[in-house]
Amino acid sequence: MAIDVERPEGRPTERSRVIRVRDGRARELPDDLAAEEPLEIRLRGESVAVTMRTPGHDAELGVGFLVTEGIVRPADVAAVRECRSEEGDGGVVDVALRPGAVATGGWQRNFYATSSCGVCGKASIEAVRVATAPVADGPRVELSTLEALPDRLRKAQRVFDRTGGLHGAGLFTPDGRLELLREDVGRHNAVDKVVGRSALGGRLPLAERLLLVSGRTSFEIVQKAVVAGIPIVAAVSAPSSLAVRLAREANMTLVGFLRPGGFNVYAGAERVEGLARA
Amino acid sequence: MAIDVERPEGRPTERSRVIRVRDGRARELPDDLAAEEPLEIRLRGESVAVTMRTPGHDAELGVGFLVTEGIVRPADVAAVRECRSEEGDGGVVDVALRPGAVATGGWQRNFYATSSCGVCGKASIEAVRVATAPVADGPRVELSTLEALPDRLRKAQRVFDRTGGLHGAGLFTPDGRLELLREDVGRHNAVDKVVGRSALGGRLPLAERLLLVSGRTSFEIVQKAVVAGIPIVAAVSAPSSLAVRLAREANMTLVGFLRPGGFNVYAGAERVEGLARA
Repeated sequence: MAIDVERPEGRPTERSRVIRVRDGRARELPDDLAAEEPLEIRLRGESVAVTMRTPGHDAELGVGFLVTEGIVRPADVAAVRECRSEEGDGGVVDVALRPGAVATGGWQRNFYATSSCGVCGKASIEAVRVATAPVADGPRVELSTLEALPDRLRKAQRVFDRTGGLHGAGLFTPDGRLELLREDVGRHNAVDKVVGRSALGGRLPLAERLLLVSGRTSFEIVQKAVVAGIPIVAAVSAPSSLAVRLAREANMTLVGFLRPGGFNVYAGAERVEGLARA
Repeated sequence: MAIDVERPEGRPTERSRVIRVRDGRARELPDDLAAEEPLEIRLRGESVAVTMRTPGHDAELGVGFLVTEGIVRPADVAAVRECRSEEGDGGVVDVALRPGAVATGGWQRNFYATSSCGVCGKASIEAVRVATAPVADGPRVELSTLEALPDRLRKAQRVFDRTGGLHGAGLFTPDGRLELLREDVGRHNAVDKVVGRSALGGRLPLAERLLLVSGRTSFEIVQKAVVAGIPIVAAVSAPSSLAVRLAREANMTLVGFLRPGGFNVYAGAERVEGLARA
């Protein structure tokens, strides 16, 4: 699948002056900040959402958002165009569909995205839920492989290294190889970029992959992973109650507090190999 | 100012079963998860936004959102009513205004909130910006006082202790006393709860207070603090480029990476006392 993507430069960091204080002594230095800017996501020229995001991989973010929110089917994407907004202080990404393709969902009313969550204008859990099938039974992962992942993600987070200010989302093979990493000031944007890249490459559903996120797991993160067909989601920090509930309903394995030497399994423990009963 | 608030029970945590793995050994235990649920925010009965939030202090969250998004002036709030949604799996908060009061801003078109950001449906920085005056010159804070704050916030975060999954926002006096703490799965919700509580108590603008957030500082967090008139915002982690830009324009002091022994000042260093040049 060859999808045409027009792409201008995106800068993930911005240089600034900072006063660094150590042991009471102040020194003014140049510093790299994680860049944050609005991105308007358009579908066939019509505005669907605005998200506060880190510039770079805007086409992936736009496609990932439209796919994980259940608005667009991956196979229907024909072309993506990125440009600066007329005001020059934000970006625009416009997704074109193949002739005859239809966008689904009542997004004209409901969909507005932000830097950490795509749920908007919907009042109950049922209303915030994107209709989707459970994930396939998929692969299993070795306990020792799982525990090695956060270190691999962290070492690959180049923009985080410079700014300390970005969420990371990494797509791994079941044997622990990092296949794709995206970073963003918004954690759900990082996941949308991963899913968007995979959609543009014709690789959905990601039935043989594991997603690791650097922070906490919200309902939104789990929902996006379910839509992308990812069977195992792991996080360095805690899940919310709703994240756990959705993971269980969707046949997903959900791991939290993943560190060397230990983790918690909230759903789907049968996909973790090598567990001994205490 | 006495504002009538009707309030049902809200549970900030939810009990669940978890498989805890330590050194390869698995044990099934009960665990407390940070609760996440949709809350619909209504103004005079009309739906304005839905946010994914941790139950509890819903009236404060609703008022804080309406105030920090520039929709409602604090003095115009007459009553707040909290209830469960009809579906029973979310909450609703309805804010009533005094007779003759008008809501400002084009929120009918623009405002939808989420668990970490209230910016929606707006395409440029100018469009996402709430019109507001810069903060007052306000108080100064001692370097040693500043460095002691994260530990005080952390010790007071009771729900975080049980779940590891919540953002905290703390309001401090310039001499380092924690006056108000709110927790939420969404970091901007925690700030909205702090501002909403202060608005309901008739204490805006918070010109003599310091706000500490447990995570990173986004544009949204700084904007909410500016609207509330808070002159000093500090964070345990990094700010984004846009957070720094807005803080500088708004005469705010913005501190990041705040830890014992050091921090960075991104704006308004003149409010930090006791800095020696390196």
